[in-house]
Amino acid sequence: MNDEALRQALATLAAELADFARVRDWEQFHAPKNLAMSLAIEAAEVMEHFQWAAAERSPALDDERRRAVAHELADVAIYLLRLATVLDIDLTTALREKIAINEARYPVERARGRSAKYDEL
Amino acid sequence: MNDEALRQALATLAAELADFARVRDWEQFHAPKNLAMSLAIEAAEVMEHFQWAAAERSPALDDERRRAVAHELADVAIYLLRLATVLDIDLTTALREKIAINEARYPVERARGRSAKYDEL
Amino acid sequence: MNDEALRQALATLAAELADFARVRDWEQFHAPKNLAMSLAIEAAEVMEHFQWAAAERSPALDDERRRAVAHELADVAIYLLRLATVLDIDLTTALREKIAINEARYPVERARGRSAKYDEL
Amino acid sequence: MNDEALRQALATLAAELADFARVRDWEQFHAPKNLAMSLAIEAAEVMEHFQWAAAERSPALDDERRRAVAHELADVAIYLLRLATVLDIDLTTALREKIAINEARYPVERARGRSAKYDEL
Repeated sequence: MNDEALRQALATLAAELADFARVRDWEQFHAPKNLAMSLAIEAAEVMEHFQWAAAERSPALDDERRRAVAHELADVAIYLLRLATVLDIDLTTALREKIAINEARYPVERARGRSAKYDEL
Repeated sequence: MNDEALRQALATLAAELADFARVRDWEQFHAPKNLAMSLAIEAAEVMEHFQWAAAERSPALDDERRRAVAHELADVAIYLLRLATVLDIDLTTALREKIAINEARYPVERARGRSAKYDEL
Repeated sequence: MNDEALRQALATLAAELADFARVRDWEQFHAPKNLAMSLAIEAAEVMEHFQWAAAERSPALDDERRRAVAHELADVAIYLLRLATVLDIDLTTALREKIAINEARYPVERARGRSAKYDEL
Repeated sequence: MNDEALRQALATLAAELADFARVRDWEQFHAPKNLAMSLAIEAAEVMEHFQWAAAERSPALDDERRRAVAHELADVAIYLLRLATVLDIDLTTALREKIAINEARYPVERARGRSAKYDEL
């Protein structure tokens, strides 16, 4: 049920973002290859905020920094939705499938005992 | 109104993902710095699918490839939501703010005429 | 023979970069994890210059742009050398090994006929 | 003097890598845009090795892991040299210029006292 609500909410947002590109005649730039590059570039910009953080644990972000990070996360989300749109991928279905894969791959009792995913890395 | 629906749907999904990590005792690994790295790594994996694509325009993805890309996009979405969660960032608000910034930065009439964002790049 | 010249030239440069960090008391920041993040961030900055390029083929870079790209490539090289240094990895040996692996993996006659590496992608 | 030795050693290696691509008829794939993507993808693969490292400080890499990282660093170096080659960028000159920029930007006495670069981040 939440999945259906999520699907609809994302579809509405994706349509808004598609309009944003269309009225600016930017669709010509939004080839999947370009959008995939944009996604990676924005993800790197998120990372910049944590590059030199001394502690592994969450630094107490001040308000200005939190807002800057929030906007970088929004950029990632925007390109993610654009890419899913131009590839005609249903992100909600993809999420549901991937979560199921992860649950099968990392059963609670084994993953908890051994944190296998992380230990093997 | 859609924003509120999106916020609730994302909150439900984020809670599910937080549970997934918690029952596996993986929260110790989910420091913002680590999640930001994961986000960038997954974005690079999306990009791999388009790395050698000859055409700028969307290649006709076969079903197997589309599914693989879909799951990579899901990975990006999962780490994006996890990162927003541990940083206590409301992604819907961030999206709304960033879209407003983009609208101010790229007014339709100017952006359309000159595609300034892309030309300057 | 060139390998030995390369090894010595890289060692001299790496020592210079190590000094640069040491006199600024920056070694504390140059943990492998941090340097790996820096490497990825700089690589993304290189990519930004080609993000919206319409043509696959090399755009004719004007002088200003070429210089900007050159400095981004230098940043990548600097972090690459720093990371090799702190991990005590001999980059020349690694290059020689990796080139041998690539030659075995992509024999000329097969790779040329079918461009297998790229076709399979 | 070391710069000239480095320039020559890199030129010899770059020529070898160009031959590797040419005899496989891979030059068609080595547009700057594609090589920039490859560089970022390989940098992300380096990062994967340090993604979940608990400590900031260098983990004691076992031999197998060190070798895997070494080969990823070699991949970064290979794409870096290929990209410099197709863009006709002299990497040694770029390095010398960028190091001079960094020295001017982070004077020892100020950088050491305040680690300004990292503090501001």
